[in-house]
Amino acid sequence: MRILFSRVFSRISGIPRKSLFDCPQHRQSLVFGTNSHSSIDFNPKEKVDPFSLVADEISLVSNRLRSSTVAEIPELASAAGYFFREGVEGKRTCSMVLLLMAKAMDINRPESSFNCIGDSSRVQLHRKQQLIAEITEMIHVASLIHDDILDDARTRRGIASLNFAVGNKLAVLAGDFLLFRALGALASLKNTEVVSLLVTAFENLVTGETMQMSATVEQRCSMEYYMQKTYYKTASLVSNSCKAMALLSDQTPEVATLAFEYGKNLGLAYQFIDDILDFTGTSASLGKGSLSDIRQGIITAPILFAMEEFPQLKAVIEQGFDNSANIHTALEYLWKSHGIQRTKELATKHANLAAAAINSLPESSSLDVWKSRQALINLTQILTTRKK
Amino acid sequence: MRILFSRVFSRISGIPRKSLFDCPQHRQSLVFGTNSHSSIDFNPKEKVDPFSLVADEISLVSNRLRSSTVAEIPELASAAGYFFREGVEGKRTCSMVLLLMAKAMDINRPESSFNCIGDSSRVQLHRKQQLIAEITEMIHVASLIHDDILDDARTRRGIASLNFAVGNKLAVLAGDFLLFRALGALASLKNTEVVSLLVTAFENLVTGETMQMSATVEQRCSMEYYMQKTYYKTASLVSNSCKAMALLSDQTPEVATLAFEYGKNLGLAYQFIDDILDFTGTSASLGKGSLSDIRQGIITAPILFAMEEFPQLKAVIEQGFDNSANIHTALEYLWKSHGIQRTKELATKHANLAAAAINSLPESSSLDVWKSRQALINLTQILTTRKK
Repeated sequence: MRILFSRVFSRISGIPRKSLFDCPQHRQSLVFGTNSHSSIDFNPKEKVDPFSLVADEISLVSNRLRSSTVAEIPELASAAGYFFREGVEGKRTCSMVLLLMAKAMDINRPESSFNCIGDSSRVQLHRKQQLIAEITEMIHVASLIHDDILDDARTRRGIASLNFAVGNKLAVLAGDFLLFRALGALASLKNTEVVSLLVTAFENLVTGETMQMSATVEQRCSMEYYMQKTYYKTASLVSNSCKAMALLSDQTPEVATLAFEYGKNLGLAYQFIDDILDFTGTSASLGKGSLSDIRQGIITAPILFAMEEFPQLKAVIEQGFDNSANIHTALEYLWKSHGIQRTKELATKHANLAAAAINSLPESSSLDVWKSRQALINLTQILTTRKK
Repeated sequence: MRILFSRVFSRISGIPRKSLFDCPQHRQSLVFGTNSHSSIDFNPKEKVDPFSLVADEISLVSNRLRSSTVAEIPELASAAGYFFREGVEGKRTCSMVLLLMAKAMDINRPESSFNCIGDSSRVQLHRKQQLIAEITEMIHVASLIHDDILDDARTRRGIASLNFAVGNKLAVLAGDFLLFRALGALASLKNTEVVSLLVTAFENLVTGETMQMSATVEQRCSMEYYMQKTYYKTASLVSNSCKAMALLSDQTPEVATLAFEYGKNLGLAYQFIDDILDFTGTSASLGKGSLSDIRQGIITAPILFAMEEFPQLKAVIEQGFDNSANIHTALEYLWKSHGIQRTKELATKHANLAAAAINSLPESSSLDVWKSRQALINLTQILTTRKK
C-alpha cells in the first residue's frame, strides 16, 4: 500500500520543523520524503521483523565478541569464546533489543548536544552503542557460565555446558575473564552513569542467583519473592542496558526511564513464558531438560498461581522434589489449575507494558526510528507467543 | 641520635627551594625543621616498621571493606565479607604496600598539578588512593575465593576456605560479587588508565591460574614458564596497583615505572619465599598444608633449580605426584641440591631490585616521604626473611 508520507510526519510534535531540517544529516536521511505530500512504498501495517532490521549490526557485534575473547593462553581463549562461536551464539535477543533500542531513540532534540551531531560523532555513538551490546552479551554469557557451574548443568544452547565440556575450574576462570573483559570495555566508554548501571545489573544477577539458591520454603512460595528474583535474574541486565543506550545518546531522564521500562517488562514477560515452557516444552525444542526448574526445587509462576487455587501444593513443596512422586503430584495440581493460563496473562500484561513504553517515546519523523519501534513492539508479541 | 635535619634536606635536588616553601601545605608539613640547621629526634638508621606507619589507614581500608560488602541478601553479604572480618583479614600486605607507596610518592613537582594542591584536593587524592587499596584487596580476595574453589582447598588464613564453609555455589557468587563491587569502585575513580591497569592485573590473575592448570610437563619444567606464571598470579596485581597509585597522584611516567618495578619485584620475591616455605614451613605456621604445591603437581622454583642439578627429577615429574613415593623421591633430590638456596638467592635478587626502584625515586625533603620509602625498603627484607 502506498501511503502519503506526511502521515508519518504528522507524528512529529513539539519540534519546530525548521530546526529538524536545519540539520544536514536529517535532510539526507529524509530523502525518501519531504515536508510536502510526497509518497513512498511503505506499509505501516506490515510486521517489521526485529532480527532482520539489525542483522548486520548483530553480525558485527558477534564478530567483535569472537575477537574480544582472544587470550594469551589458548585454553582460556577457547573457553571464554565457547558460546560466541558461530552456531552456538544463542538467540542474541539481548543484542537485538539493545541495537533496536538505539535506533528507536534516534530522536531529534533541539536542546540536545546529540542533535545535529556530525558524521564522525554519529559513528562514534554507534560504536559505543554496539559496545554496550557486546558488554551486555559478555556479562550475560559470563553469568550463564557461572550459573551452569552452580546448577551442575550439562547442556546449554543445545550443546554441552562449558563446565561439562572443560570442567568447573576452567569454566570459573572463563567466566571471570569475560567479566573483566566486559569491565575493560565498559571503562573505555568513560561514562560513570553507564558503568554504574551495568554494575548494578551484574550485582542484581548475582543477588538473584543467591536468592534462588538460599530461599526458605516461605520465600519460595512467595509471588513477591519470585517477582523480585525474576527481575534480578532476567530483567535487570536488559533494562539497565536499555537505559545505558539512552544515556549514551544523551536522552532526557524520561526517555531513559521508558527505555528501562521496556527492558524490564520485556525481560519479565520473557521469563514468565520461559517458566511456562519448562512445563509445556520438550527437551529438544528448549535445548535443555524439560521440568528442569521443578526438579531443582525452583518454584515459578505457574506453580505459584496453582497454589493459590490449591493451597495443599505448599505441603508438596515443603517435602521437596527429590522424588518423582512429588513432581507428579505438583504437576497434577498444575494441570487442574489455571496456573499456566494466569502466567500467560502475566506475561501478556508485561509485554503490553513494554509496548506502551515504546509508544510513549517522543514522536519522531524518521522512518528508521518508526520501524525500530515497531520491531520492539512486535518483539513483545514474538517473545510471548514463542513455543521454544 | 639527634642529627642535623639539613642532612635530610641535602637529599633535595632539582626543586628550587623557593617553590617548595611557596606552598603552604609544605610549610606546614615541615614544621619539624626549617631550611636552616635545626635539629629533631630522628634516627635514620632506626628501622621503620612498615605496618605501624600506615596502621590507621589500613584500619580505615579494612572498615570500608567490611561496609562495602553489604548486600541485599544476608547469605551473599556474609559470604562476600567472609575474609574481611576482623581477625581473618590476612596480612593485608597489599594494602600496606599501596598506602606506603602513596606516601612515598608525595613528591613536589613544580610542573605538576599535584604540587601545592589545596587541602580538599589532598583529602580527595588520599581517598582515591585508599580506594585503590580497597579495590586491590577486593580483587585479591575474589581471586583467592575462586582459586580455592579450583584447588578444592579446605583452609585459608587458618580457617575454613569459603567453598568449604558455604559450598562452591555461594563461593562462586561471592567472588563475582566482590569483582563487580571492585569494578563499581574502580569506575568511580574516572581514570581510564587506572581502570586499564587493574583490568590487566585481573586478566593476568586469570591467565596465571589457567597457565598453572593447563601446563604440559614441558611447561611445568620450564623456569621461564614458572616466572611468567608467578608474575601473573602474584606480582601483577601489586605492581599494577602501585603504578595506579603513581598515576593518581600525577607522577611522571618514570616514577610510575619505578612504582611498578617495586611492586613487581616485591611480589616475585614474596612468591619465591612462599614456594620455599611450602617445603620448609609447617602447616600450623603457614595456615595451610605444607607441601601443598607439589601434592597438586605444581612445580616451583626450588624443584626447578634442583632439576638443573639432577635432570633425572624430570622423569619423576612426568610420572606425577599422585603417589607419595614420587613426592618422597623429589624431596630427596631437592635436599641434595641447592634448590632452596638458589630460590632464596633469586628472592634476594628481586628484593634488591625492589629496593633499588625506591632508591631511584626523585629525592624529597619530607621526613614522611623518607620514612615511607625506608618502610618499603625494610619490607623487602621482612618479606624475604620471613618464616611463615
